[in-house]
Amino acid sequence: MFQQITILGPGLLGASLALALKERGLSQKVHAWSRRPQTRAQALQTSWCDAVFESPSQACAGSELVVICTPVETIVPLLEQIAPSLTPQTLITDVGSTKSLICREARGTHVNFIGSHPMAGSEQTGMAHARADLFDGAACIITPLDEASELDIARLHQLWNAIGMDVSTCTPEKHDEIVAHISHLPHLIASSLCSYLAGKDSTWKQLSGGGLRDSTRVAAGDPTLWKQILEQNREEVLRAIDGFENELHALKTALLDQNTLELVAQLERGKRFRDSL
Amino acid sequence: MFQQITILGPGLLGASLALALKERGLSQKVHAWSRRPQTRAQALQTSWCDAVFESPSQACAGSELVVICTPVETIVPLLEQIAPSLTPQTLITDVGSTKSLICREARGTHVNFIGSHPMAGSEQTGMAHARADLFDGAACIITPLDEASELDIARLHQLWNAIGMDVSTCTPEKHDEIVAHISHLPHLIASSLCSYLAGKDSTWKQLSGGGLRDSTRVAAGDPTLWKQILEQNREEVLRAIDGFENELHALKTALLDQNTLELVAQLERGKRFRDSL
Repeated sequence: MFQQITILGPGLLGASLALALKERGLSQKVHAWSRRPQTRAQALQTSWCDAVFESPSQACAGSELVVICTPVETIVPLLEQIAPSLTPQTLITDVGSTKSLICREARGTHVNFIGSHPMAGSEQTGMAHARADLFDGAACIITPLDEASELDIARLHQLWNAIGMDVSTCTPEKHDEIVAHISHLPHLIASSLCSYLAGKDSTWKQLSGGGLRDSTRVAAGDPTLWKQILEQNREEVLRAIDGFENELHALKTALLDQNTLELVAQLERGKRFRDSL
Repeated sequence: MFQQITILGPGLLGASLALALKERGLSQKVHAWSRRPQTRAQALQTSWCDAVFESPSQACAGSELVVICTPVETIVPLLEQIAPSLTPQTLITDVGSTKSLICREARGTHVNFIGSHPMAGSEQTGMAHARADLFDGAACIITPLDEASELDIARLHQLWNAIGMDVSTCTPEKHDEIVAHISHLPHLIASSLCSYLAGKDSTWKQLSGGGLRDSTRVAAGDPTLWKQILEQNREEVLRAIDGFENELHALKTALLDQNTLELVAQLERGKRFRDSL
């Protein structure tokens, strides 16, 4: 599929992608760049990495595909940095959890960029946790701008599909609205529940069971990465919080007013949705 | 440990308790009562059940321990029904998720009642899902009234401990405050998140991953049972919702005001709590 690809920032996602491509014979060579010398040395010890570079531009030279796998705030700065050394044929994508801001700013760099959001991962981070099957069966959204070529969209679709992902396409704005609801809001809620309970008697948590643990698992995510995601998707996230607050308020009101019919109706609506997941 | 015990309402919890006691040789005989003839017939087919009865009073005759395992709203009515046929030596307990109202009303029946809340279970319900190891390693709270005898408290402690539970004791009121926070609030939040998302584009959920599934697992619980639990623990639940609403509002405000320091501080507080679970 590819002669050579470049992974910028090979953490959990980047290294897993490289591993998945190499294991399937989908890229002959994988070049990598990381800001940290330690990560570069670690990458060289892996089976998926053919060469590491001290500068991102050097790492991109000669690659048909560049995948930016760094935290969302650094994607556009990196894009600006590598832009002068790319050929018009090089296809660039990323794995960021937000898309509107990144795609809008990518347009200004005049590189051949199409945003991707492979919705895989875990609370574990870093190259050491990389797995070739990380993406298997998960959803991936790609968010081409109007000027993207059909051929490049098809190549990117094929890339994620080849490693087992269920690929769909939408605008960057629609992507951000969707993930604000199905990913960022659940994260915020779990995090708020945890920070609220953190202020309570510390012995209570010894009494908690699998329910609380499952409900709050996502709150273990890296605060620095999540802060970036929330700030990049600020408006959609704020809208999603407002909607959720209204829903919770309606349930509270039903309980307060002893409106059993409404209380049960809301619990049933919730159960039906959950059962359909 | 016991010559004979009675399980009133052998669903998931009651049948699992009977199974656990029988497998460990902790009760020679187990008598059972269920409202439904079908459940009585089913119980007779199991290894843990020695006899079933059409009336709860008959089922209690001659037992040293009676465990009421029916939905919380029906615990006190059952207690009132069986009271005349119990001896002063019979120890009665339950497995209800709320304790204040039940223990307060149990006092009026003048039976030898001590509330229990074994915090085990799953979204699966019914006798067919019974497992002898359901309680293993989970927490159990017992909530004796002031007049309970030390001997009976010790017997009940031993009972739950013998099937692998980590037993603690507190007042019914403190129990209800604790579970409002660590169990009922997480349930309400998951349910509200699901009922909110139920109103959105139905294709979005195909894009969701393990994060949303884990966060909302508890929302699959039985709405009729949960409605009873929430109504019985109304005041504490309302207080817990208020506290959570304030916490979520603070996070929303930090995001709205672009107060990055506060946003990260709250995410970090949440992560620390989650990591400590």
